[in-house]
Amino acid sequence: MAHIELGVDENQFPGINGPMRFRPETAKPLSELAEVLLRQGPHPLSAGERELIAAYVSGLNECDFCCSSHAAFAAAQLDEGMSLVEQVRVDLDNAAVSEKLRALLRIAGAVQESGRKVTADLVAAARAEGATDLEIHDTVLIAAAFCMYNRYVDGLGTLAPGDPARYAAAASKIVERGYLD
Amino acid sequence: MAHIELGVDENQFPGINGPMRFRPETAKPLSELAEVLLRQGPHPLSAGERELIAAYVSGLNECDFCCSSHAAFAAAQLDEGMSLVEQVRVDLDNAAVSEKLRALLRIAGAVQESGRKVTADLVAAARAEGATDLEIHDTVLIAAAFCMYNRYVDGLGTLAPGDPARYAAAASKIVERGYLD
Repeated sequence: MAHIELGVDENQFPGINGPMRFRPETAKPLSELAEVLLRQGPHPLSAGERELIAAYVSGLNECDFCCSSHAAFAAAQLDEGMSLVEQVRVDLDNAAVSEKLRALLRIAGAVQESGRKVTADLVAAARAEGATDLEIHDTVLIAAAFCMYNRYVDGLGTLAPGDPARYAAAASKIVERGYLD
Repeated sequence: MAHIELGVDENQFPGINGPMRFRPETAKPLSELAEVLLRQGPHPLSAGERELIAAYVSGLNECDFCCSSHAAFAAAQLDEGMSLVEQVRVDLDNAAVSEKLRALLRIAGAVQESGRKVTADLVAAARAEGATDLEIHDTVLIAAAFCMYNRYVDGLGTLAPGDPARYAAAASKIVERGYLD
């Protein structure tokens, strides 16, 4: 049970969905930020790659709801599906991603610890693999934003369903209609 | 020098101001979130109290720019000014804040570590001092949001001016015109 009375059936509105309904004034910019960062295009990183960064950071933060959600959203938009998401989460050094994405994921992992952990060397390594200023900016902000979303979801003690089918169903909706629906 | 080419004079647009100008699409929801969380009313927590939560979390994250900024914004809106902000940052247990605000600041400190550190006991302690669901929700989200803003500012290696007068001047502008200006 969540730490506050959210005014919804938590099983029907798990994770971030309860707090978003409790406080629509903050839900609006939170949804808009997710839409711009994870879906808006044209963008040099695909939606699947951006969701992969979100899932990776959420896993590092041990946020079950966000990690399961964004892993499913990434899997639904990557040719390699959930197996690639799991590779990245288990062994980033050997996962079958491009060297550019691997370098960006390393920046995201540093941001998860602290903004101060992002070194000039990490940024130079991403740039050497072809990452642009926009890709570096958005990687830092996606990782930072999930340090917020993860804390919001877990700090209010919300419910994370155990059934993977729930996240797959949410993925279909997000891929089709996005975060503003 | 920032990790990416922000396209602005960093001395004129320090801290978060450079990245916000680099990427206006994400600046919009980031500004709206700050405006709702820190200024929009009516609200049971004053703007000064909400800025104090932001400054406290930014200090825990060792983000010089955000901590100096929001400490100045809090001081400008609290009767007790900067001395109260410093008390809270140095010794929360004995700072001259209400017991309700002290309990909320303890929740914010837990969120800074991880959403999973917010216990039912911390929430019950705040509730026992009169904190409402809205105050608990907004405290968690302010703390979570500053775990994002702090990482955004430091993850891009932006400039934090050393001169306190810069932050006092920014405070005058924020108090008068807010985050959407």
